[in-house]
Amino acid sequence: MSEKSSFSKAILIVCDGLGDRPTFKGRTPLQAADTPNLDAISKSGINGLMDVIAPGIVPGSDTAHLAIFGYDPYKYYPGRGVFEALGADMELNKGDVAFRANFATVDDDMRVIDRRAGRKGSEELAEALNRLEIEDVEIKLKNTTEHRCAVVMKGKNLSRYVSDVDKHVGGDIVAECKPLKDGTAEKKTAGIVNEFVRRSYEILNKHPVNEERRRKGELPANIILLRGAGSYEKVPSMKERFGFCSACVAGASLYKGVAKYIGMEVIPVEGATGKADTNLINKAEAALRALKHYDFVFVHIKATDSMGHDGNYEGKLKMILRIDKEFMPRIKDADAYIAITADHSTPVSIKRHSSDPTPIVIKGKGVRRDEVNKYNEISVAAGGLGRIKGLDLVPILSDFMGYYMMYGT
Amino acid sequence: MSEKSSFSKAILIVCDGLGDRPTFKGRTPLQAADTPNLDAISKSGINGLMDVIAPGIVPGSDTAHLAIFGYDPYKYYPGRGVFEALGADMELNKGDVAFRANFATVDDDMRVIDRRAGRKGSEELAEALNRLEIEDVEIKLKNTTEHRCAVVMKGKNLSRYVSDVDKHVGGDIVAECKPLKDGTAEKKTAGIVNEFVRRSYEILNKHPVNEERRRKGELPANIILLRGAGSYEKVPSMKERFGFCSACVAGASLYKGVAKYIGMEVIPVEGATGKADTNLINKAEAALRALKHYDFVFVHIKATDSMGHDGNYEGKLKMILRIDKEFMPRIKDADAYIAITADHSTPVSIKRHSSDPTPIVIKGKGVRRDEVNKYNEISVAAGGLGRIKGLDLVPILSDFMGYYMMYGT
Repeated sequence: MSEKSSFSKAILIVCDGLGDRPTFKGRTPLQAADTPNLDAISKSGINGLMDVIAPGIVPGSDTAHLAIFGYDPYKYYPGRGVFEALGADMELNKGDVAFRANFATVDDDMRVIDRRAGRKGSEELAEALNRLEIEDVEIKLKNTTEHRCAVVMKGKNLSRYVSDVDKHVGGDIVAECKPLKDGTAEKKTAGIVNEFVRRSYEILNKHPVNEERRRKGELPANIILLRGAGSYEKVPSMKERFGFCSACVAGASLYKGVAKYIGMEVIPVEGATGKADTNLINKAEAALRALKHYDFVFVHIKATDSMGHDGNYEGKLKMILRIDKEFMPRIKDADAYIAITADHSTPVSIKRHSSDPTPIVIKGKGVRRDEVNKYNEISVAAGGLGRIKGLDLVPILSDFMGYYMMYGT
Repeated sequence: MSEKSSFSKAILIVCDGLGDRPTFKGRTPLQAADTPNLDAISKSGINGLMDVIAPGIVPGSDTAHLAIFGYDPYKYYPGRGVFEALGADMELNKGDVAFRANFATVDDDMRVIDRRAGRKGSEELAEALNRLEIEDVEIKLKNTTEHRCAVVMKGKNLSRYVSDVDKHVGGDIVAECKPLKDGTAEKKTAGIVNEFVRRSYEILNKHPVNEERRRKGELPANIILLRGAGSYEKVPSMKERFGFCSACVAGASLYKGVAKYIGMEVIPVEGATGKADTNLINKAEAALRALKHYDFVFVHIKATDSMGHDGNYEGKLKMILRIDKEFMPRIKDADAYIAITADHSTPVSIKRHSSDPTPIVIKGKGVRRDEVNKYNEISVAAGGLGRIKGLDLVPILSDFMGYYMMYGT
């Protein structure tokens, strides 16, 4: 590695689900939006397209971020639950199995009336279930946002290879958790999950909080449904792998969880909600402050993805305008490399993630400026980066920053 | 996966050996040809270049098609003979070893006079050799086109790792088949091949059909030369791997064989010869009919490659004009994604396959239209697809079609 004095810093901005397909008047939201600041960055930088995982492979949000941070998801992906638990500030130790969970509403026949319990959780209800013990397993539960929870199971011989209890559809009887492999750990874990779900109903259904909800005409949050089992194991940090200290500025908890998993420091930001109302000015200022203490600052902006999932072209376009107007002017002249990309495309036309490659621009000292002068999915294709993979991004940035990996002499 | 109702169909057109190098007046045949229909497809689609196997690796026709269908040839290639046998409608079971074979002409010293026996085979001669038994091995033989045959050996402990008897040169003594690995199966198989070649001479040389040929002044087809041993094993079908039903419209038997190997239905087409006289109108209409019953229709057009091998610039250009005029107008407005590419380049200047990447265009709902408006090797390089690999193509099409593969959540 080169000398300390020649090191530079970097800000990586991931606009979730930003990439799209031509929709209204044959243009993507990025093409249609008037984005002078993004365009100026493209004009002074090097541009391209990025297959976050691989061409044609549709990335999940979790695997996508691992790839973008230089962690091959096929090697490092621990299962979604781990990120949820870390994002909820829950402690994880080797062998713990973690889940995403929802408060849900079931009727007396255990039929799912609303898998989100009216989108309303309760810290008191969560506390009523927290630290339950089933066999030798201690179960911790935390209500994160709205109906969402994270669950951690601590005990011997647990496995992430068990099926989801939450099937993402309402109207059915609560599904049974089943072992996905023929092993004692899988059987044990599935049994514990089923017993936990049963007990959650037993405890929650008659809980005073739910009696009160019923009186008010609200749906009771009378069961916990688990999914996305993940198995925690410590992985080498970004500092260990690439040599620089990194920090995360994000609203939504999943991204904080991924960041923690790879050893990033999560910076709390007032008003960072992970929604369309997020305070982008605070996030930009938090990123600039973080840049004083960290070498690599990751900023996550969520709402572009949510608008894609909702099929809301106007909403996505407006969020892009906000990013351009409120966020970009504050960071564009930072003394750092700036990379702007997405974790995947979420085309409004199909309301789901897609494998369409994401636009990527890198601006900073010494990058080869190409002739691209608009930041959108079509223009960047002619740029100097060509078509790269998600796993390539951090190594490319590392070299610009001076933390390069050399092979050979 | 998304809901059934959101699935779309696709037509993949492979113009064999279409890619070329600048030759006459510095232009490739594709650049020189006036192709308004191909150009219109490029203009309304997304374009790029494709390394069918990998940059610098010259694809064979068989491995190229596996890659284009999403089957890594380094994992799935069974050896050429398997495709020849399947293309000839011969039954194959696990462990069978299949060969490409030629009727050839040898003199009394077993010197090869013509390795193609005057390009003339004979069903009667093939029948005289069919179902021979050597040791515990039953040998089936079928005359396909002209001098070409397919041979299948059925028995225990056979191996594809044996050398070719047909060395692709005349004038030499018939080569001995040798084991390519030090195993009992290889030794046994080589012994059976040598005995089969010896017996084929014994039976054919004095056969009345050959007496008659000699009387007419024709070369006798008095020996069978084997090459391209392949070992059959069932692989997961496209349906199993990607979720859609597929069909093949092709003239030449190799491509039908590859298609069958991966579970495509082969659609018979009147006048599809695999040669320059092939009936492109019938092929287009067969493809459109197939599209009613199948999700993914593969169309193979052979003669562009043959013209490349012959070094026939004018012939290749004329075949391209025929494709543009007779085939493209019929399919260009089909309710399906349309992808047009080649399995490799066959430059007329070098009369062989080359690794020069092939042009690729994908047209259909939601694709990101780029600024390319000519379908040729140079123009497409600036397109929105960038430079992809053969193995990427079906995953990319699958996502457009709605049969997407997601990794993560």
